[in-house]
Amino acid sequence: MIERLTVFGVGLIGGSFAAALKRANKVGEVVGCGRNEANLQLAVELDVIDRYELDPAQAVQGADMIMLTTPLGAMRSVLAAAKSGLRDDVIITDGGSAKRSVVSAVEAVFGECPARFVPGHPIAGAEQSGVRAVRPDLYQQHRVILTPLAHTDPAATAVVTDCWEAAGAVVSTMDVEHHDEVLAATSHLPHVLAYALVDALVQMEDRREIFAYAAGGFRDFTRIASSDPVMWRDICVANRDAILPVIEQYCADLEQLKSAIADEDGEFLLDVFSRAKHARDRVYQNR
Amino acid sequence: MIERLTVFGVGLIGGSFAAALKRANKVGEVVGCGRNEANLQLAVELDVIDRYELDPAQAVQGADMIMLTTPLGAMRSVLAAAKSGLRDDVIITDGGSAKRSVVSAVEAVFGECPARFVPGHPIAGAEQSGVRAVRPDLYQQHRVILTPLAHTDPAATAVVTDCWEAAGAVVSTMDVEHHDEVLAATSHLPHVLAYALVDALVQMEDRREIFAYAAGGFRDFTRIASSDPVMWRDICVANRDAILPVIEQYCADLEQLKSAIADEDGEFLLDVFSRAKHARDRVYQNR
Repeated sequence: MIERLTVFGVGLIGGSFAAALKRANKVGEVVGCGRNEANLQLAVELDVIDRYELDPAQAVQGADMIMLTTPLGAMRSVLAAAKSGLRDDVIITDGGSAKRSVVSAVEAVFGECPARFVPGHPIAGAEQSGVRAVRPDLYQQHRVILTPLAHTDPAATAVVTDCWEAAGAVVSTMDVEHHDEVLAATSHLPHVLAYALVDALVQMEDRREIFAYAAGGFRDFTRIASSDPVMWRDICVANRDAILPVIEQYCADLEQLKSAIADEDGEFLLDVFSRAKHARDRVYQNR
Repeated sequence: MIERLTVFGVGLIGGSFAAALKRANKVGEVVGCGRNEANLQLAVELDVIDRYELDPAQAVQGADMIMLTTPLGAMRSVLAAAKSGLRDDVIITDGGSAKRSVVSAVEAVFGECPARFVPGHPIAGAEQSGVRAVRPDLYQQHRVILTPLAHTDPAATAVVTDCWEAAGAVVSTMDVEHHDEVLAATSHLPHVLAYALVDALVQMEDRREIFAYAAGGFRDFTRIASSDPVMWRDICVANRDAILPVIEQYCADLEQLKSAIADEDGEFLLDVFSRAKHARDRVYQNR
């Protein structure tokens, strides 16, 4: 049981975590903190949090767990502002999509990562954002990756795991670098590609007509380009070192396809398309 | 009223066209033709077609409308084989995703396009394929683009328009080149990008784990990579001249994003992501 949870950044991810713990009776009080007071008031009205504080050090008073779900670029300053109010035994965790960057932010504030800091990342679609999108069942059957460090207290990891499992999530652990590489490939790269596609079409002159004739496939393909631009700017900067190599590999693959189209090399195209279809169908059984 | 419709390639597109016309009482008899007899038998069992012929010239006997929905690469040979059986006044139309290529195939067979040939393209998602996926309501509220030529008989265009409208579609016309450019941008490019992404991930060593940690956004983003590889090979080759420039523009845009990530140029990233999100939200209102 968490007596008092403080959530920094009460949006879809942090708000749904709090709402799930409330529903599971796993938390006593939830305190929200953020820069947008109207959003925090709304979160109280929606019963996502019990109360809020605007000052980070006040917000963490007496809290036994802190959940950081601000954009990645804000983690360091929020922690620095909260530091003086933290209990010695507080468990700190987060929902950031790039783990090395969060670990570095925590190190910058504390000198080294506290033993009771447990980096985490819920793999839940988030092209919708904000407290109005909060759902206590958001994490049901979704994966959560924890990336504890060598000196992380296993008891703290166990508490965070327990909370996520109470929210319905499937928890696994991997090391920080592995996480960042896997997510660069499966999440960060697709977002960059989708943003780039929509922006490329915007720049074509007759864009209204272009979008008017887009079919269902285009809608699905570009859905992630409706994700929060600030969040994704921060992810791209934060996970730069893992994202750049996968963009490069992708460009090389795309270049090969372009050459095959130019050469009308149907055999090559059919090979690539078939391999991709087979792989995807195996993963999703055409969901 | 169409007395006898012959459909070449009884899959999702042609089968759904036939099924929609049947439901609207717009067609007397539907004859299917294709290379896979088991598929044609299944189409009869599913009441998508009334009977079938394996020989194209037999299949078109007495037909007043022909719908060509084979892969693009097969259009020319099918037409050549059917030619001797065609009625003089037959209306020929098709469902191909690249119009210049179909026009060229028809020209190759007939010398010049018959006045009663009406090139067409229903914009309906087709990552599912085959006669089992046929739905009489597939085209409800979907766009169909007709690209009649200068010498196309307006009466023939009107009949084809009437059929598609009976199927629930919204019909518009544009010229062949415009169609091919718009579709290269909104449909062909996204398919190439999605196939390339899945294939790039397949080639990364730990692919099982990579796919295991993919989230909902990845599933949507890659759905079109489950489309029929033969169909898409043919589209890429058939619409080569329109696809290559959009791939090139896309690669240039992606290169800019890559540089911005490398330079940690958050301002540039935020600009692009915001512009893309705004454009997409405007089109779909976040559907």
